[in-house]
Amino acid sequence: MNITSKLVWVFLFVAVVILMSFLRDRNKSNKVIFFGDSITQMGVNPGGYISLMKEILVQQNITNYDLVGAGIGGNKVYDLYLRMDDDVLSKNPTTVVIWIGVNDVWHKKSYGTGTDADKFERFYNAIIKKLKNNNIKVLLCTPAVIGEKTDYSNELDGDLNKYAGIIRTIASNNNCPLIDLRKVFTDYNLKNNKENKSAGILTTDGVHLNDAGNELVADEMIKALVK
Amino acid sequence: MNITSKLVWVFLFVAVVILMSFLRDRNKSNKVIFFGDSITQMGVNPGGYISLMKEILVQQNITNYDLVGAGIGGNKVYDLYLRMDDDVLSKNPTTVVIWIGVNDVWHKKSYGTGTDADKFERFYNAIIKKLKNNNIKVLLCTPAVIGEKTDYSNELDGDLNKYAGIIRTIASNNNCPLIDLRKVFTDYNLKNNKENKSAGILTTDGVHLNDAGNELVADEMIKALVK
Amino acid sequence: MNITSKLVWVFLFVAVVILMSFLRDRNKSNKVIFFGDSITQMGVNPGGYISLMKEILVQQNITNYDLVGAGIGGNKVYDLYLRMDDDVLSKNPTTVVIWIGVNDVWHKKSYGTGTDADKFERFYNAIIKKLKNNNIKVLLCTPAVIGEKTDYSNELDGDLNKYAGIIRTIASNNNCPLIDLRKVFTDYNLKNNKENKSAGILTTDGVHLNDAGNELVADEMIKALVK
Amino acid sequence: MNITSKLVWVFLFVAVVILMSFLRDRNKSNKVIFFGDSITQMGVNPGGYISLMKEILVQQNITNYDLVGAGIGGNKVYDLYLRMDDDVLSKNPTTVVIWIGVNDVWHKKSYGTGTDADKFERFYNAIIKKLKNNNIKVLLCTPAVIGEKTDYSNELDGDLNKYAGIIRTIASNNNCPLIDLRKVFTDYNLKNNKENKSAGILTTDGVHLNDAGNELVADEMIKALVK
Repeated sequence: MNITSKLVWVFLFVAVVILMSFLRDRNKSNKVIFFGDSITQMGVNPGGYISLMKEILVQQNITNYDLVGAGIGGNKVYDLYLRMDDDVLSKNPTTVVIWIGVNDVWHKKSYGTGTDADKFERFYNAIIKKLKNNNIKVLLCTPAVIGEKTDYSNELDGDLNKYAGIIRTIASNNNCPLIDLRKVFTDYNLKNNKENKSAGILTTDGVHLNDAGNELVADEMIKALVK
Repeated sequence: MNITSKLVWVFLFVAVVILMSFLRDRNKSNKVIFFGDSITQMGVNPGGYISLMKEILVQQNITNYDLVGAGIGGNKVYDLYLRMDDDVLSKNPTTVVIWIGVNDVWHKKSYGTGTDADKFERFYNAIIKKLKNNNIKVLLCTPAVIGEKTDYSNELDGDLNKYAGIIRTIASNNNCPLIDLRKVFTDYNLKNNKENKSAGILTTDGVHLNDAGNELVADEMIKALVK
Repeated sequence: MNITSKLVWVFLFVAVVILMSFLRDRNKSNKVIFFGDSITQMGVNPGGYISLMKEILVQQNITNYDLVGAGIGGNKVYDLYLRMDDDVLSKNPTTVVIWIGVNDVWHKKSYGTGTDADKFERFYNAIIKKLKNNNIKVLLCTPAVIGEKTDYSNELDGDLNKYAGIIRTIASNNNCPLIDLRKVFTDYNLKNNKENKSAGILTTDGVHLNDAGNELVADEMIKALVK
Repeated sequence: MNITSKLVWVFLFVAVVILMSFLRDRNKSNKVIFFGDSITQMGVNPGGYISLMKEILVQQNITNYDLVGAGIGGNKVYDLYLRMDDDVLSKNPTTVVIWIGVNDVWHKKSYGTGTDADKFERFYNAIIKKLKNNNIKVLLCTPAVIGEKTDYSNELDGDLNKYAGIIRTIASNNNCPLIDLRKVFTDYNLKNNKENKSAGILTTDGVHLNDAGNELVADEMIKALVK
């Protein structure tokens, strides 16, 4: 093979690679990473909210979304910050959906290792700043529930409302779309949990999603992601 | 002195004692002990809710009430149980107003020494049983507030609502009049605390009563006591 | 039946009752109630420390001891105080062995519902006072262990040592014999737990007794009870 | 100016810069950042341990050390991680002394916002890795005391010993020099705190250094830094 035909092959190869990357880009122009705790970790299971969203996208013939779960059980806001290089930035997402906060509140009571409100805010902002510096679109979720009682007697409701409020303010300050799951879940429960049950409406245990919970979250997130 | 005159003297003495006891009964036929924590301890201070009630009774020319404060700072339900012989039963009240619960919830967070809900109920019932066995009328109060925010983000709201609910059930089960200060305070704040302050509406610090708080409590208690 | 024979029968009946009570007293002149938490509740199980003590007494032909378990899981010092009329005084023991304190420390961390040191002391003293007023002999035990590590890194060691110290002082102030299980257990572990295990030496889980633990406790208690 | 003279000037400029940097290096070849919490924040105050070390260096005519305080009150290990770019790496130290851990343990109890042991280790290792990647020498300190009692009844001793143990293991695994202040302080107290005081020997309040504490820390650190 002479030098000319070699160059032709090289040219063809490069051209194909470039074309394929364009096709890939067209097909999967949106890489969305769901960044969170055990609720998100379980979201990629069959029936989980991320799996459901994938099904919805298929049904709607939407092919340019790549949904990636990045949830780890027990994570608090600073755990996300610690692992964001490895688990998010290195994967070059276009969009990151942050859903964190339940353990920051819950672990105060269960282990004495929750997160102070001011540090919750500081780490949350540091995550957003890093993502924005990488031109990544950021969507924020409020923590949904710790207990589904509707008579305002879930032990951690007050603190959970406080942290949800912090996230709403952060979203507003940073012009990030907000998926207000705290509001969605409590509204749903006020309608559908007339017996004041502590679990079983949208969760299996007051925190982790049951089928109805996964469906509700999938619907809310699809609405926010695909417009 | 012959037997007849002796008998006359004895008869007279007995008659006087009986008469005096009637007079005393008419004057102070209601001895009310306010049994509680630091909020009640401060209630006997000038401007405190017990002092205000005394003034109200004077203004209304009601003279047959003796109001006695028996509050000790930091008390939880089991502290009341421990000291009820010394501080309540030995003083022969006709009525006891129990106002306890803030520390049972608050100290979970501040010291790790709050009271489990089931034990709160058990000790509360044990107190009521002892009082009823002594034919003492018992009025129950729900704990008012730990934080006055109106956006449902006071950290301990959920747990405080839970314990308030326990007291409502105990009141109902034991046919005890209920002074629902939790409801009174939150309703008042929803109307008057539009700025979502954490203190300064009915309390100085989110827990202990300011002037408006003392007046509100005095009014509610007088209504429940004097009918 | 004439009046004389009636009186004879009454006399005989009374005589028999008195005799029987003497016999009973001779046989079981020592009624010992073990008053405590889940460790004591499990003490009456086969292989439990109370069961082992009964076997030891049989082996030693000691017949005048009646050992009664009165442990309830999760109990703290104030729970003992609440139920002492029903579970101890009404049963007329000659001796009570109090073994409490693990949950008073442990529940601070696990539930936020431990017992403040000053109140621990107050309730403990109130229990002893009531028992002494009923002429009951009282033996005190220090809480043994929460974690068996020997490098002084069991999370709650410091607080457990503090509460053990309070009990030692109470025992001294009230001239009550002390069974210093805290010291016995830590000494045993320093010798026998060279691998710094957190459980498995004298306990199954760091708190509840395994076979070796039950034997050690039974030995220590028999020494203190039967002299 | 012709090209030759231009080059001469450039050469001279470069030579001077290089010389100056050598001089600077000779003068302050060791830039040591003390990275920690309130104890370190107070270390730069007059009489603080960092100020004392500066005085010691002057007395010993050691001029090639630049000691820089970077302590912030309330900091836990993850706070150090969050601010290490701004407060450490951007300042190009040759050496970093990490002294953290008291709040990671203490805040479990006081605020319910301490640090889990496994996450303490993870963040600590992440800090060391970043420093080593920047060719910075790292010295580790164990947390000294929370309470100075010598009868092993400081409430948090067990947990503090656990976290000190974690740091010893990290130091060993990473070949980092260890300044074992936990051991130094407890040894000192066993000798000098015969009255079992909870504060006043090396600290003002059981945590923050008094004069004797600052001197002891300065001595230990100088020994480890300057050899």
